[in-house]
Amino acid sequence: MTDASRVIGDLRELGALTSNDQGAQRVAWTPVWQRARTWFAEKLAALGLHAERDEAGNSWATLPGRSPATIILGSHLDSVPDGGWLDGSLGVLAALEALRVYGTRDLPVTLRLVDWADEEGRFGMSLLGSSAAAGRIDLDAARAARDRNGLTLVDALRDHDLNVDALPDAHQHLRSIDARAYLELHIEQGPVLASLGAPAGVVVGTFGVERYMLQFAGQAAHAGSTPLPLRRDAFLAAAQMAIECREAARRISGAGTAVVCTSGFVHVQPNIPTAIPGACEMSLDMRSLDAAALASMVAAARTAAARGAADNQVSVEWRRLWNIDPQPFDATLVQLCEDAVREETGQAHRLPSGPVHDATEMAALMPSVMLFAASPNGLSHCREENTPDDILEQAIRAYVRLVGKTIERVTSDV
Amino acid sequence: MTDASRVIGDLRELGALTSNDQGAQRVAWTPVWQRARTWFAEKLAALGLHAERDEAGNSWATLPGRSPATIILGSHLDSVPDGGWLDGSLGVLAALEALRVYGTRDLPVTLRLVDWADEEGRFGMSLLGSSAAAGRIDLDAARAARDRNGLTLVDALRDHDLNVDALPDAHQHLRSIDARAYLELHIEQGPVLASLGAPAGVVVGTFGVERYMLQFAGQAAHAGSTPLPLRRDAFLAAAQMAIECREAARRISGAGTAVVCTSGFVHVQPNIPTAIPGACEMSLDMRSLDAAALASMVAAARTAAARGAADNQVSVEWRRLWNIDPQPFDATLVQLCEDAVREETGQAHRLPSGPVHDATEMAALMPSVMLFAASPNGLSHCREENTPDDILEQAIRAYVRLVGKTIERVTSDV
Repeated sequence: MTDASRVIGDLRELGALTSNDQGAQRVAWTPVWQRARTWFAEKLAALGLHAERDEAGNSWATLPGRSPATIILGSHLDSVPDGGWLDGSLGVLAALEALRVYGTRDLPVTLRLVDWADEEGRFGMSLLGSSAAAGRIDLDAARAARDRNGLTLVDALRDHDLNVDALPDAHQHLRSIDARAYLELHIEQGPVLASLGAPAGVVVGTFGVERYMLQFAGQAAHAGSTPLPLRRDAFLAAAQMAIECREAARRISGAGTAVVCTSGFVHVQPNIPTAIPGACEMSLDMRSLDAAALASMVAAARTAAARGAADNQVSVEWRRLWNIDPQPFDATLVQLCEDAVREETGQAHRLPSGPVHDATEMAALMPSVMLFAASPNGLSHCREENTPDDILEQAIRAYVRLVGKTIERVTSDV
Repeated sequence: MTDASRVIGDLRELGALTSNDQGAQRVAWTPVWQRARTWFAEKLAALGLHAERDEAGNSWATLPGRSPATIILGSHLDSVPDGGWLDGSLGVLAALEALRVYGTRDLPVTLRLVDWADEEGRFGMSLLGSSAAAGRIDLDAARAARDRNGLTLVDALRDHDLNVDALPDAHQHLRSIDARAYLELHIEQGPVLASLGAPAGVVVGTFGVERYMLQFAGQAAHAGSTPLPLRRDAFLAAAQMAIECREAARRISGAGTAVVCTSGFVHVQPNIPTAIPGACEMSLDMRSLDAAALASMVAAARTAAARGAADNQVSVEWRRLWNIDPQPFDATLVQLCEDAVREETGQAHRLPSGPVHDATEMAALMPSVMLFAASPNGLSHCREENTPDDILEQAIRAYVRLVGKTIERVTSDV
């Protein structure tokens, strides 16, 4: 019998142990993170379980069943600096509850709980542990990676008796498992479910991302002495493009799959009220669950940038910052998740995830799905991140129910 | 007989005496500026003239005629730090040439040359000397004014044996003069004349200016997890407004009098590629020679700001930074200037001045006009400011010709 209040009690206990008045401080490879893992090991020990670590520092606990066919329940204990109490830890402790519930029975299949290492990417490499397990680590980048204070990932790993060159071996560890499904509960980190009045939702996949920095170059000039036709205003070129991209995102979204587009970074020069901007740097972050829709958005943005530049007599250059392909989740698991959420909450909304998650890495290897708990204020990566207990409890129960349904489904396949 | 090459020789001599490899350093109230004035006093002495200083530090030299009716020839020797060789000093040395030319004759009216003090506003108060002479000094602001390094205007004046409380007395000095006209030659500091292929132009007035800072306030949120309809993007609100203002300026300009509108300062928060901007501060500098057109532009900007805010679910607040009314020049003098420019260059284009000048202050008190020399690269307030000698010579000859025409006109009136 699922006891969701027990999970919330665990979360508060962990929060008290690993937070200060600025929020959660479970930053990967720090003593506070290690304290969280030690605390979690004691929780596992109470179930007679012992965690083992792979070559990327991911921590695995196994509840063996009659079949080696395995369902992986994953999330992460690490947080950003000054983070929230739920991001990552909700999924780990709900998975622990699932082990408590299903460990009391004669299990037909095997359950494994994984606490991924450094999901938040302290060294600039998001999903560090799960991407290593997925066999997609960039070893050159890992060898060169440093955190904000200049500490190298190499040294941080060494301090935890890990070797950067052995990171890819975490993939061998994962491949040795007969994995049939990956399930992850996470807070939404956005306002969609709250706006629908839904405590929980079914995640249909994680967005692909195309992220660029654009450099518009015109000519700085006196705001008073330069007539309109002779201006080469780099800011107006960027502004025109941003507005056209907003329209393109609405148009593409209106035709089917949602696309979002954000200009979050803007820097003009010389940046004084009496000078026409001669240069403007602007970021563009485009996301969609649908590769074709994302490609349409990128194409529309390129057209908009060219038109903004031409209309304002400036030039524009693109530089790619980062990209990742859309990762749709498994249709069967999505349906099971929808059933679980509806049975628990009386409604079931499907939504994509804008942020990437460890499940993004797993979905490339095995059937995967995520379940979101609502984030009523939409905030995350800050101490204000919060979800009321009654919503959390419904989402936790829906997740444990999803684990049960997945056990049945995998059992019927073996 | 006008010797324009002599004026250019003087300008180069002054430049060599008061510049370093970063440009002109004739910043008001500094030893280099004092050196420029001492050098200029020697030039006046060669004509048998002696400069006297008013209570605001403006330096006046008088060439008396049969009538006390006076034509004032003005400009300024001070420069911005790292400034150009022509901004201000061209007008002073062309005025000196006019004294040389007309001082050899029996003058029917009086000529006065004024070198205004601190036109560039080292202490944040543009047109300091001429605004004091015009009786428009803000004495409270003057008492509180400091330069970039924290030096007070009060102390700078005291070091030059001037008293901040006596600044308004400069107005009594000007009122004691039977002034009938004010004439000023200046470089354009913009690209208009060069784009027309004209060496010189007739300035019909100086633009009024309405300068504001706008604060758009929305909600910062994750670029991936926030769907388009739930966004409150402060940057998009500002961008939309800037584009609408560009269209409004084109529309109003197309209907008659030119209006310009510039967003030169832009600052978004939190200013990272993965966050929707929750706040955007943007400046708006609007200028026109026509008060009604300027008022239309401000009204259009207010409508655009409100629409940009509403369309993006954000709020907007306005804060006025500075404003000055349009100052049209005297129709009779504008015609004389046009005649002089056409006779000298074979063409005569009328244009407004975007920047304000000392002539803006004088035009409120007496018939005034300015003549611009072209600035082929459009640059000023930097060492790259430049105009080729042949263009300068035509503009100088046109100016001295304008002085002659004004002498005739004032003489016919007395």
